[in-house]
Amino acid sequence: MPTIKDVAARAGVTATTVSRVLNNRGYISSETRKKVYGAMDELKYRPNEMARFLSKQQTNYIGIILPSVVHPYFAKVLHWFENYASVQGYKVMVCISEDSREKELEYIDMLHSNRVMGILLCSRSGQLSDLADENCPIVTFERELCTSIPSVLCDNYQGGVLATQRLADAGCKNVAIFAGAPELGLPANLRVESFLKTCEERGIEGRTICTDEKAFRTNDYEDCILRTIQENPELDGVFATSDVMAAQVIRVCHRLGKRVPEDICVIGFDDVYLSGLTSPSITTIRQPVEEMCRYAVEMIVKKANREIVPAKVVLPVSLTERESVR
Amino acid sequence: MPTIKDVAARAGVTATTVSRVLNNRGYISSETRKKVYGAMDELKYRPNEMARFLSKQQTNYIGIILPSVVHPYFAKVLHWFENYASVQGYKVMVCISEDSREKELEYIDMLHSNRVMGILLCSRSGQLSDLADENCPIVTFERELCTSIPSVLCDNYQGGVLATQRLADAGCKNVAIFAGAPELGLPANLRVESFLKTCEERGIEGRTICTDEKAFRTNDYEDCILRTIQENPELDGVFATSDVMAAQVIRVCHRLGKRVPEDICVIGFDDVYLSGLTSPSITTIRQPVEEMCRYAVEMIVKKANREIVPAKVVLPVSLTERESVR
Repeated sequence: MPTIKDVAARAGVTATTVSRVLNNRGYISSETRKKVYGAMDELKYRPNEMARFLSKQQTNYIGIILPSVVHPYFAKVLHWFENYASVQGYKVMVCISEDSREKELEYIDMLHSNRVMGILLCSRSGQLSDLADENCPIVTFERELCTSIPSVLCDNYQGGVLATQRLADAGCKNVAIFAGAPELGLPANLRVESFLKTCEERGIEGRTICTDEKAFRTNDYEDCILRTIQENPELDGVFATSDVMAAQVIRVCHRLGKRVPEDICVIGFDDVYLSGLTSPSITTIRQPVEEMCRYAVEMIVKKANREIVPAKVVLPVSLTERESVR
Repeated sequence: MPTIKDVAARAGVTATTVSRVLNNRGYISSETRKKVYGAMDELKYRPNEMARFLSKQQTNYIGIILPSVVHPYFAKVLHWFENYASVQGYKVMVCISEDSREKELEYIDMLHSNRVMGILLCSRSGQLSDLADENCPIVTFERELCTSIPSVLCDNYQGGVLATQRLADAGCKNVAIFAGAPELGLPANLRVESFLKTCEERGIEGRTICTDEKAFRTNDYEDCILRTIQENPELDGVFATSDVMAAQVIRVCHRLGKRVPEDICVIGFDDVYLSGLTSPSITTIRQPVEEMCRYAVEMIVKKANREIVPAKVVLPVSLTERESVR
């Protein structure tokens, strides 16, 4: 890897001159500047970011810890996070934890050792205590850990209201919500709360089906969905709390010869790439992932600069109409 | 951020002693060792990886440049690449190029400046010349740039054979292949070649439908698929060259009232998360993405260590049976 000294030798100037050209400091004749840039090109010299980072004791790297990137929701989160980070000149280190608490802690330690400026944590694990760190702020995504760690969330309560109202508007009388793993205490639990409240207000039958933690971890809900639909033949509407789950509801209906949306309406949550690819496509509650990621990057940068940031940012959801609800 | 000096002051020893503890060098009494580790814990001291990297002029970061992570194929590539890299102690910097040649070049430059040890390039752009660089090896994934840049590929030709044979075995007589954008010269073009050859061998009608580059960039093939199926009502088998495309073939059949697999058999390519979530699920050719990523990491590491690596590694594909073929 060529150094400043090599560039200086090739250009026939001193290393100090090369450094002055690089940092735009002091008077440099246009001829010298041209010689220096020419030598850089010839040698494929690239300024060493690390040397700069070392003197500042901080990089412009941001870490992101995700349980998965194969899951379309987290893929979307990574997409927009990288987008907003890179536009502002930050680089993203990606860490996939596979929902393992141990891996999450290891990654946090590793990211600290690499002097990242901050971390976005999309954890589905239990409480991670003692993570607040002045020197390397953590921001969580769709997860509230404690008041000293800021979080970016979508309006889960309102999402439950919109989904349930849409099912009621379609004429559904007997609806069920498939909820993730309530024992994890995720913000998504609010969707169940507003579902039940809205069912009551609209005078329709609403039941909660909790998938177990194993189904939640593996994202394989088909058995649970099949059992529920077979045991409740009067069911005419389903609120799936993710689009991955909604795709599986559609699959089960297909197997059972029930038509979606004619016999059963299905509404999802997230609005990910998958929702446009199923047959029928999935009507869903859109999480504003793009805006959430914009806030996440902003909060990490501000917190790294010791500025005050909100403890919590909640962004509005909306309804995306497709084909799975009448 | 606490430094070695802070740890030394807290532990009541010299900085040299702390450094000797950290590097396991020379005799240190167990009492001193305990004091030093205690001080590190209290101060949340973390060794500075960057200082180490700077002295070596290289990090243990690997860059990966992907056109997208929302597309399930590239999400799967990132998943396994991060997995194999992190197991071996490397960290992954992720760069999403959105198929822009300009962005790819910018990212490569940025990764060089950050002294990554190598780059995995999953490019769908035109020829990127002059990228071979002794100091920062590039390996490509499902893409051949030039002989000096090693590539990891799946056996695309054999994939086309397996898919076409499977359609013929199901009794299909009139089959079509939907190909990406042949003008890009991707290795995937071999799938078309072996499709036509196998159709001929099996005595069935085979036609090639080329989607245009725009459809390929946006992954929106529905119009092209709809037109083809409407214009060729005798079509009884489709070889979609990605699972995303296969999902869209199933959607169009659903719209037209054609049953999959009873009226039309559909076979995909890739074997991604999506293929288990459609109704019916997608019978497909499995790319061994896990093994391909293992080789990709290995080749980058070896090349960074100036070892000789293959110019090309081609890994075998296989058939994954699901529901979309009889």
